[in-house]
Formats: sequence, C-alpha cells, structure tokens
Amino acid sequence: MTQTTPPPDIRLRLAFAGGLAFGPGKAELLRQIARTGSISAAGRAMGMSYKRAWSLVEEMNTGFAAPLVASARGGAGGGGASLTETGAAVLRHYEACVDHLRTDGADALAALAGLVATDMSGGR
Amino acid sequence: MTQTTPPPDIRLRLAFAGGLAFGPGKAELLRQIARTGSISAAGRAMGMSYKRAWSLVEEMNTGFAAPLVASARGGAGGGGASLTETGAAVLRHYEACVDHLRTDGADALAALAGLVATDMSGGR
Repeated sequence: MTQTTPPPDIRLRLAFAGGLAFGPGKAELLRQIARTGSISAAGRAMGMSYKRAWSLVEEMNTGFAAPLVASARGGAGGGGASLTETGAAVLRHYEACVDHLRTDGADALAALAGLVATDMSGGR
Repeated sequence: MTQTTPPPDIRLRLAFAGGLAFGPGKAELLRQIARTGSISAAGRAMGMSYKRAWSLVEEMNTGFAAPLVASARGGAGGGGASLTETGAAVLRHYEACVDHLRTDGADALAALAGLVATDMSGGR
C-alpha cells in the first residue's frame, strides 16, 4: 500500500543585508491589510496583538526604501490602511519567489515529500 | 549615488503533512555531520548543545521514512556518525530547492533587494 505525502508548505524567509527580514508572517500581514483595509483588523485576523501588528508595519516601513503601508491615524473607528505601490510590489515579488520554488522546484519538493514517513505516529 | 543591496539570504523551511519540518538548521546539522563524522562535533560547530543536536537527529530519523543519520554508540571518544543514503538525498533535494529559488527566482530576489532601504541606520 503506497501513500503519497502531499508537497510541503513552503515557509520562505529572506534576510537582507542591514538586518531586515521578510517572511511568511509579514507577507500575510500585508495580504490581510490589503483585504481588511486596517492594520488592527489585519492583526486580529492573524491572532496578533494590535501592538505587534503596528510594530511589524513600522519595521517594514522603515526597512524598505519607501513605506509599504499607508495609514490614516484618524478618528473614531480608526483610520484606514492600505498597501502602497512599494508594498504591493514587495508582496508580489515575494509571492513570485515562492511560486518559482513551487513550480521549478516541484520535482525536488516531491522527492522530499516521498521520503517522509507516512506513519507519523511515532514522530513529531 | 546608487547603492545596490546584495540578494538576500534564503532561509527555507518546509513543513510536511504530519508535522515534520525541515529547514536551514537541520540542513546545516546534516552538512556538519557529513563534514565532522560526529553528531556532537556537528552540534559544537553550530554552537548547539549535544542534547539538542541528538534530539534534532532523532526527530529527523523518525520523521523520515528511513534514518538520515547512522551513528555508532561506541566507546571512548564516542562513536562516529555519517549520513545514510536517505540523509544525503534529503540534503541534496533541499539544496536543489534553494538553488531553484536562487536561479529561477533571481529577478524577483533582485527586485526585492532593490526595494530595501540602503540607509538602515534607522531601521532594524
């Protein structure tokens, strides 16, 4: 009886000169900001505190050459937030990297998945 | 004055169905075991406790369909360790994934690097 293990989830973290890192968490935060139009709603959707979401946005906004997220501080109900052109570009290029790996690396990923134990009852 | 940011370091973590994960740390441990012929020496080279190195090896040996590392318990000076055929294959396929990303994703990686702030004095 042969079971096939599906291809693995890809978690790609890029570490840039100067210390800036960009990975799955920040990418998802950008996606959720684009979807919800709000930094706090994006954080909530990820089970992340408001403070943590803001701190990640600030890190991205200062670490890249231009801000990735534009936000209005404003009023009751909080200001809105959206991705800037740079923010959309960063997310798009990051997703292109993951897609390259998924398509061009499909054979290697399948080979790895084929080497994983199908009975994981003893493993973690 | 235009500065170019070098391409980022790629840290790829693969999460398989069943909970097994394989990423840069385990890959480096396998490389060091192949190089040093010893689990404890491999751990030392990575600033990792003996216990931690053994626990990672055990996790890999049970999580994959066959052990990745063969070790002799033996005697004074400790037994030797080496990669099995499966261990060498896992490392090779993992490195192929990273290479695919580096070559096929070169444009996307360069585009990302080009968007990073060159003056990081204010960032992290």
